[in-house]
Amino acid sequence: MINLNPLTEAPNQADLLLTHEAIQPFIHRTPIMRNASLDAMAGARLIFKCENFQKIGAFKMRGAASAALRLTEEERARGLSTHSSGNHAQAVALAAKTLGVPAYIVMPHDAPKVKIAAVEGYGASVTFCVNTPADRQKALEEVVAETGAAFIHPFDDYGVVAGQATSAMELIEDTKEVLDIILSPVGGGGLMSGTALAARYFSIQAEAWGAEPENVDDAARSLASGQIEHNETNFTVADGLRTNLGAKTFAIIHKRVPKILVVSEEEIVTAMRHIWERMKIIIEPSCAVPFAAVLRYPELFAGKNVGIILTGGNVDLAKLPF
Amino acid sequence: MINLNPLTEAPNQADLLLTHEAIQPFIHRTPIMRNASLDAMAGARLIFKCENFQKIGAFKMRGAASAALRLTEEERARGLSTHSSGNHAQAVALAAKTLGVPAYIVMPHDAPKVKIAAVEGYGASVTFCVNTPADRQKALEEVVAETGAAFIHPFDDYGVVAGQATSAMELIEDTKEVLDIILSPVGGGGLMSGTALAARYFSIQAEAWGAEPENVDDAARSLASGQIEHNETNFTVADGLRTNLGAKTFAIIHKRVPKILVVSEEEIVTAMRHIWERMKIIIEPSCAVPFAAVLRYPELFAGKNVGIILTGGNVDLAKLPF
Repeated sequence: MINLNPLTEAPNQADLLLTHEAIQPFIHRTPIMRNASLDAMAGARLIFKCENFQKIGAFKMRGAASAALRLTEEERARGLSTHSSGNHAQAVALAAKTLGVPAYIVMPHDAPKVKIAAVEGYGASVTFCVNTPADRQKALEEVVAETGAAFIHPFDDYGVVAGQATSAMELIEDTKEVLDIILSPVGGGGLMSGTALAARYFSIQAEAWGAEPENVDDAARSLASGQIEHNETNFTVADGLRTNLGAKTFAIIHKRVPKILVVSEEEIVTAMRHIWERMKIIIEPSCAVPFAAVLRYPELFAGKNVGIILTGGNVDLAKLPF
Repeated sequence: MINLNPLTEAPNQADLLLTHEAIQPFIHRTPIMRNASLDAMAGARLIFKCENFQKIGAFKMRGAASAALRLTEEERARGLSTHSSGNHAQAVALAAKTLGVPAYIVMPHDAPKVKIAAVEGYGASVTFCVNTPADRQKALEEVVAETGAAFIHPFDDYGVVAGQATSAMELIEDTKEVLDIILSPVGGGGLMSGTALAARYFSIQAEAWGAEPENVDDAARSLASGQIEHNETNFTVADGLRTNLGAKTFAIIHKRVPKILVVSEEEIVTAMRHIWERMKIIIEPSCAVPFAAVLRYPELFAGKNVGIILTGGNVDLAKLPF
């Protein structure tokens, strides 16, 4: 296992290259896919990076591995911890399993049983809490105090950002054409800021743009106002994008992301269905958001080479939005 | 466009090689996928050939192209025709479009609208009929008499069989390990007989085995009795496998397929769900049948390298069996 140095500022080109090498034992090199029907629909050449085929079914594996490898041997031996009801919980659990150390995950008691089972399936200890931010934070602090485990933040951590950047690095390397735009959905901003850094350091000309639901458009408003804005509501089908930006991810996004596009709930579901029907792959609602933006703002993408990061495929098949 | 000679007997090794070369303009080379969770579940190494990513969303594109290229220039210029409510209709329509000739497709008037739209989307003329075998046959004969178009049988045609064989040829070539068994679902037997020929001519040791639903187990019974048996009912969730074998496909299967396994409806749905959830890909119920057989008869597959042809991904997302 390669150890990485902790990052006290946004990762640079060398940091990203070392990160990509170091996390190899934790990740798949996911394929890129093309689809002629969706290209025709968009009037652009779309290159999809399929993180739904990543280990644990989402890109989050990259960031969790990158952060875990930045701990000292002593820290790591005491285990990894986080609070999450989603993909980050599975990512931290599998990172710990791969490293041979314990994982302690705080999950809301009403989290989907299948997600709890997945986390436990990687050998993690699960602590249940009431599903409010305050209760989750308190439960996490208790677990950390008791076990000495290291907390891996889901996004606002330069190690996590460096890991998430490796998806766009692979996309740029594996795409035969020169990309004009790389689209990423924006939740807490870990993937968005990593994608922006990858575009800056590894692409001749690609800009990294974001896309998010209108209902939780904190990132678009933050970019406009120059400070972190919050969401009034967190209702959206794109359940991975409800989070607000963090201080570290916002600073990178503010500097490096020129545009964040917003789409409606209906546009997200329509885009998701097109990808399922035409590409025959299973993606989460969150990763339909960038393609929804391509369909909503065709003038911005006409004739361009557009990379789209499909972030994950963990959906409850019994609760599809169509 | 390369023209192929008509086949008056089962294709041999040279026929299959030429077919694969000739149909290149019509097909994608579909990827193979592996999945560690499903391997663990099966106790075997499973290599999935993803024909759900094929043009028109199913392997049928291969057979339709192979048959169309065996027509004379004059025959072809008058167009292609078939009766089908499923993937073969789309395959013939797209083959005709690629060749720049007309397509005349007979479809039951109650076929799913999305399938009718797909066929019309390829520029084919659709003739509607009552949904009985006799009515479809009559409507087809009228269309052929009127237009002079060539009928492309969905399976009982050596040209079609040669085309379907190319999926297993690619699977054998792209798999790093030597395959022990290649599993194919059995409907009319076009894919099954083609897979058996590919295994015979291009694999050191692979046997081609079939899998079919218990409810429409005509192929298993035909193999046992040595003559073509028919189904009493055609109720199965695996809607692509309701057909009985044809004379040509049965002759090849009888000679070259040592085993056809049967599975229950419940086992098919469970296997389909595992593939959706773990592999994050969309497959039709029909192509879950071989994986269901692996799970039902683990002693036959333990420790083996098992190729599985995932035949297609055209499902109605509004009518999922789970």
